[in-house]
Amino acid sequence: MVAAIIGVGLIGGSLSLTLKQAGIFNKVIGVDRCVDNLDKALALQLIDEALPLEEAIKKSNIIIISVPVDASVAIVANVLNHVNAQQAVFDVGSTKLPICNCIKNHPMRKRFVATHPMWGTEHSGPQAAVISAFKGRACVICDAGLSDADAVNTVEYLYKKIGMHIISMTAINHDIHAAYISHVSHISSFALANTVLEKEKEEETIFEMAAGGFESTVRLAKSNANMWVPIFTQNKENVLDVLNEHISQLRKFKAALEKDNTAYLRELIENANTIKRILK
Amino acid sequence: MVAAIIGVGLIGGSLSLTLKQAGIFNKVIGVDRCVDNLDKALALQLIDEALPLEEAIKKSNIIIISVPVDASVAIVANVLNHVNAQQAVFDVGSTKLPICNCIKNHPMRKRFVATHPMWGTEHSGPQAAVISAFKGRACVICDAGLSDADAVNTVEYLYKKIGMHIISMTAINHDIHAAYISHVSHISSFALANTVLEKEKEEETIFEMAAGGFESTVRLAKSNANMWVPIFTQNKENVLDVLNEHISQLRKFKAALEKDNTAYLRELIENANTIKRILK
Repeated sequence: MVAAIIGVGLIGGSLSLTLKQAGIFNKVIGVDRCVDNLDKALALQLIDEALPLEEAIKKSNIIIISVPVDASVAIVANVLNHVNAQQAVFDVGSTKLPICNCIKNHPMRKRFVATHPMWGTEHSGPQAAVISAFKGRACVICDAGLSDADAVNTVEYLYKKIGMHIISMTAINHDIHAAYISHVSHISSFALANTVLEKEKEEETIFEMAAGGFESTVRLAKSNANMWVPIFTQNKENVLDVLNEHISQLRKFKAALEKDNTAYLRELIENANTIKRILK
Repeated sequence: MVAAIIGVGLIGGSLSLTLKQAGIFNKVIGVDRCVDNLDKALALQLIDEALPLEEAIKKSNIIIISVPVDASVAIVANVLNHVNAQQAVFDVGSTKLPICNCIKNHPMRKRFVATHPMWGTEHSGPQAAVISAFKGRACVICDAGLSDADAVNTVEYLYKKIGMHIISMTAINHDIHAAYISHVSHISSFALANTVLEKEKEEETIFEMAAGGFESTVRLAKSNANMWVPIFTQNKENVLDVLNEHISQLRKFKAALEKDNTAYLRELIENANTIKRILK
């Protein structure tokens, strides 16, 4: 299978490496508006060739859109303009409703499959791509009924081959759940980093004292603004809803502490501990 | 060297295992008001013998207080009542000013060394103890000038033998820095877990969709209330100070989103990214 990967960064690059290793992709053509990314991707063997969009689509069986979600919304219609009924297109973005909405009346809509593989790191760019990254994780496929069955089957086949399991939901529900589970975690982590940077002027002390707990909580704060600004913006209503709840939960801790209400503090912590039964 | 470990949980147990493996502790005597903990610690060979407090102190060269910080404040004077000028006592708690304050006039104060090894996990109890846990981490020693030089030297020797490096500061400064770097991370994580538990009623969905980002951000939310309620309470003023800042940082994200101010959103994220230069 020949694949075109539009956006040769963390996710596109990791998919390419992993699907090439699995023997599924015989050839990967990279498309990126950043020449430097293409050079790196070629050097790292994430891609075999770099071509402009139209030429890359023409030579490919499958087209993967793995750019930030504002860019994917901007290009998806143009990608579909150039595909035929034997090709399939899928995206990997962290929001699903905006991309689905903007092509809902496109004549080739059914060749598009909206997906969100639940894997990522705080790093970005071709140099961040890793092999065998997706194993054991879930991949969400949205509104599968709006896509041709063969296109969905092809995309599911690819994800299953790299060890992911498929969960299906509507694009609307995906964006609600993603706000809860992923987007607010990132805001919390960015805000925590800003808190520490604001309050703690002794950087050497942060560096020395930062134990595992702090590092894991602020790890996501290293995430790239080009990726996250459009995610938060596209999923604004859901993110604000959860963010308001998060601020109100923090205010409960504040109130418990201010009033020396240790019983309430304990209750808040023990409630948080029940997250154990959901995560493992 | 014979050690008494008061509180055979995560930190006490891990210190015991690691210092026994390093050949420093020939014998470890466990003291714990929970018989079940002592049984587990014996079975796991964290300790060689279980004894009541006074007997354990009598037989030991060094006494480690590794109980929650409310319990350590409650027992430290009594421990010092039973030590002689050849023995040294140190604690490992996450707050330092309260324990130092409550023994400041004790005749044996100089045998006590206030320490905080910067390592831990979200797990607790003897079964959570692990070997070689502390390597490469910092250990804070507070107000070393208030302790006898030989006691400080012994404690530093133990920590260095297990691969920690020592940083020195006052107990006051420790508690300020710990609020920034550790305590507010835990509150943020507890509150994030509560947010998700409140908003997301589809637990199966959390479980399925929770990718690495969410798991790392809420990992600390599994931490034990018996340990954390007293830490937050003892360090109340510093924690509230940082918590207020954290809420105000989250409000900046909220304002940026509400006003569709993507330039400000980007600025907030890019500022958070600078945490990279401090963590590695």
